Parts: sequence; structure tokens; C-alpha cells
Amino acid sequence: MLPFTRVTVIGLGLIGSSICRAVRAHLPTVRITGHDASAEVRDIARRIDLCDDVTDTPGASVIDADLVILCVPVGRMGEVAEAIADDLPKGAIISDVGSSKGSVAKALEAALSGHIIIPAHPVAGTENSGPEAGFATLFHNRWCIVTPLPDNREADVEKLCDFWTKLGANVEKMTPTHHDLVLAVTSHLPHLIAYTIVGTASDLEQVTQSEVIKYSAGGFRDFTRIAASDPTMWRDVFLSNKEAVLEMLQRFSEDLAAMQRAIRWDDGDALFEHFTRTRAIRRSIVEQGQDDSRPDFGRSHL
Amino acid sequence: MLPFTRVTVIGLGLIGSSICRAVRAHLPTVRITGHDASAEVRDIARRIDLCDDVTDTPGASVIDADLVILCVPVGRMGEVAEAIADDLPKGAIISDVGSSKGSVAKALEAALSGHIIIPAHPVAGTENSGPEAGFATLFHNRWCIVTPLPDNREADVEKLCDFWTKLGANVEKMTPTHHDLVLAVTSHLPHLIAYTIVGTASDLEQVTQSEVIKYSAGGFRDFTRIAASDPTMWRDVFLSNKEAVLEMLQRFSEDLAAMQRAIRWDDGDALFEHFTRTRAIRRSIVEQGQDDSRPDFGRSHL
Repeated sequence: MLPFTRVTVIGLGLIGSSICRAVRAHLPTVRITGHDASAEVRDIARRIDLCDDVTDTPGASVIDADLVILCVPVGRMGEVAEAIADDLPKGAIISDVGSSKGSVAKALEAALSGHIIIPAHPVAGTENSGPEAGFATLFHNRWCIVTPLPDNREADVEKLCDFWTKLGANVEKMTPTHHDLVLAVTSHLPHLIAYTIVGTASDLEQVTQSEVIKYSAGGFRDFTRIAASDPTMWRDVFLSNKEAVLEMLQRFSEDLAAMQRAIRWDDGDALFEHFTRTRAIRRSIVEQGQDDSRPDFGRSHL
Repeated sequence: MLPFTRVTVIGLGLIGSSICRAVRAHLPTVRITGHDASAEVRDIARRIDLCDDVTDTPGASVIDADLVILCVPVGRMGEVAEAIADDLPKGAIISDVGSSKGSVAKALEAALSGHIIIPAHPVAGTENSGPEAGFATLFHNRWCIVTPLPDNREADVEKLCDFWTKLGANVEKMTPTHHDLVLAVTSHLPHLIAYTIVGTASDLEQVTQSEVIKYSAGGFRDFTRIAASDPTMWRDVFLSNKEAVLEMLQRFSEDLAAMQRAIRWDDGDALFEHFTRTRAIRRSIVEQGQDDSRPDFGRSHL
């Protein structure tokens, strides 16, 4: 049984185009319609045959959809929802893939009152952007967090969960508020810190950028990957999940101050104890299939 | 022409054992002798045939060496140097692979006055430790920084540079002081931050460790790799390069406070401008062969 037969994806970047490819790969009889605000992206989508149909307006893309997934930066969810409001069929489920859920839920509810809104967030991605960066296996063995709203019917939520499961994801449900707290620590804070340290390293007067690049294999290069993520997407994430991000940042800053103090006062035991503890977390992540078990992320050493 | 014919490696962990393997692979006629303070590691080294000879004492390993490389945590360099002082031939070059150079140079000079001391640091590694974690290609296309001391003869420095080049590394020379500043930003600060955030994420009361692990693909998992690095090694690095690390940490904290402020005051333009700038650094690192060009570090998505 197919949970949906006519899926619309609005926003054909990394995640949107990966959904299109994953639907083609796993649900080949589902009709997939796409739209993107950029004419250039629409042209690419048509050229690489990403969808069965690419429409020039958002409204046209949703006309006969039974599932609509918004894959635009979280700051644009509201206006896109408004743009499709008149054409969205009453029985269609509207969902999204945004990295923050509380603010998205609010924006969608404001624009699409009376519609079935079930926000979701597949925790997957790469540092690349655009319709050609996507791939069908992006969601395999990754978690998709579905954040039902109080008025959702259980059957509708299960249909969305089923859809993500069919794309290869594991599904977990939680409230939007809890999602935003969890992702603030597992995703938003790490991105903020990576963006910050890459900036710090670029602005030094005693160490040149060329030196930073040359000797980046000492650890720095790991941070540059996520600091190469889409700037628009991430600006919106931080502004839309402000409270949780600031709370996690505050905790991180306190912990960093404690490390700073341990270094200043030569407290080797405190450092050693901390570094031993953090090693165990890595082991669990690898054991649970959430990262590559090969050393150095399996980077090639040729 | 071989720069050296009898090489001794003291400390048979990830880096020491990789040197042994790289010598075997690239300089097969060079005789390689190893020693490790741990009897268990010595047994493993013998079993996997890492060296031509594994000695039970540090002194015995250096008796006829023309190059001795200390691959022990930087906090132990001084005592190991003392332990080999009586047996070290006068003409032998003594070098190391420590991640901080000023303090190591001091420790070696104090213990081995009158000997030829040329500190060095191959900027390469993985998160794994021990004699079985090493591999022959670890130094390929990575930089090895040689930090000559004022009384070094040019010919001796060139021999050491030649050795590292033959193991596949690119060699750069700089002063120990400058090395310590460069590595503070490209290696030490990234490790400190990674260790800190992994600790922060483990200690939350609103988000469970199990959730942190499950949703780590949002970015957090990238940090756990370097936070899984050897605790002894890293405790010593921070304590031995304290000044430079604290200076870089101070700059990072200021930059983080600026980001925090931008988020608090909804300054989307400042965030966007910053995130756009950091993207370029990643591009240069990949272009210069210092990281994998495949998205997501080439992690498998099966």
C-alpha cells in the first residue's frame, strides 16, 4: 500500500532533490511534481529529469497533490505556504524538512489554517547545495523526526511516517519543542561553532590563511566541512531556533571556560578525565550506525 | 642516497607504528628498531613484525642508530630523552613527532646537550591509537613541519627533510615558536572545542545521551571523531602549548560572543556574511589536496 500517490516537492536543493530521487528509487509508481523559486534550478531539474513535472509557479505544483513537502530555508516557509494556500487540496498533507520545527509549525499554521500540517525533519545532509547535489540514498539509515501537532489525526501521522520509512529512514516522533532542543545540541550548536572557528582562523594576523589551509589536517579541516554548508539555510535556522541555540551556546561557553581554566592552572587530571569520557560517545555513534567506522571518516590516504 | 640507514622509533603508537610501516614500504633497506614503554605494545609489535628489532629498554634501541624519532606524548619527551642519553651515538640525529615544538625542544636540549636535536611534526593522524592503528600511507601528501634549532647544521636538517619526503610527506621549515602558534589554531583549538562540545552534549538534562547519539548526523558526529583522540597525548599538548592555545581560545571566544549577539539581535545579514566567507576556506583545503573532495568526507550512504 502506497501512503501517497502524488507527491509535490517545493524547493529542489540538496534535500528536495534527494527526496525526488529517493521517491523514484523506492516508490517508482508515485507521481512526483517539483517547483523551485529559481528559474535556473527549475531548468536544471527538467534537464536532469528530477521529477515527472516541474511547474513554474508554486500553486500549480500542488493542485492535485496528496503530500506536499516544503524544502525551502525555514525563514521562507511562511511565504511559500501562503503562495500555495489557494491551490492546496483540503485532504492533502503538508509537511516540510526544516531544521527547526516550532517556528515552522507556527508559520504553516498561520498560512494554511484548516489544512493538515505535519512538520518533519530528516536528519541527513551533506555540505553541498543545489539540485545536482542530491542522491537517492541520502536518508538511508538516518533518522527522520516527525513532530505531530495537537490536532493531527493518528492515521495521517502514520502515513507520513510510512512515507519516510519507505525512503529508507528510521522514524521517531516528538514534539516540535523537544525537537528544537535536541537539534540545537546535535546540529545547530556544532554548525555555529564550526562557522565561528573557521572565521577565527581566517582572521589571524600572526598565522596566514595559507598556513591554516596547509596544516588543516591537524583537525581544523573537519570543521570546514560543516562550515561550508548553505549560508541562507543556516542563517534561518539560527534565527528561527534562537532560544534553544542560545541556551546550548551558554552551556558550551561555560564548559569551554572550565577547560580554559584547567589549561591555565595545569590541571592535567581534569583534562584527562574529560577526554576519556568523550571517547565513549564516539564509540556509541559508530556502533549505532550513525557514522563510518573507518578511521578518519574513511578518507582516502593515497 | 639514503639519508639514514639505521632508524630507531621510540613509542609504537599510531604515529610511531606508521613510521615503521612507511620506512618498510619506502626505504626497505633501512634497518628499523623499535621500543615502547609498554610490554604489551612491544609484544604486539613483535607479533605483527613492525620492526627489524624491538628492544626491551630505550637505551638498547638507540645504540647504533643514525636517526632516533621519539613518538611518545609530548609530556614524556624529557624522561625518554634522559633514558637514552647514555647510549645515544654522538653523530645520531634525534627528532620527534610531537604536536608542540617549543617545549619539546627545551626538554630534549636539557636531556641531550651536545647531541644533534631537530624537532619535527608530521601533521597527520587518525582518531585511533596503538601499534595496530598505524599504516604506511598515513603521511602521504600531508605536511611534515621541521623546526630547526639555532645550532643545527644545514646538512643535518636537509637529511631529516629528505627522510620525511621519502615517506611521502611534503616538508616545510619554520621556528618552533611559529609552529606552536600555527598548530594552536589548525589543530589544538579544534580538538579543545570538539572535546568540549562532546562533553556539553553528554551532560544535558533535557536531552538524553541516546538522543544525542541518534541525531548526531546533524553535525555533532563530526566533532566526536577528533574528541575520540588519545587522551594522554592531548592532555600533554594543551599543557605544553598553553600560551598559544589560550591566546587562540580567547580570540575564538570573542568571535563566538559576536555570533551569539548576532543571533540574539536577529542580525541575519551579519550571520549570512560570515557563513558565506567560511565556505571559501573549505574550497581551498579541498583544492590543495588536504581533504577529500567527496561530499560528507566520502562517508558511505548505503
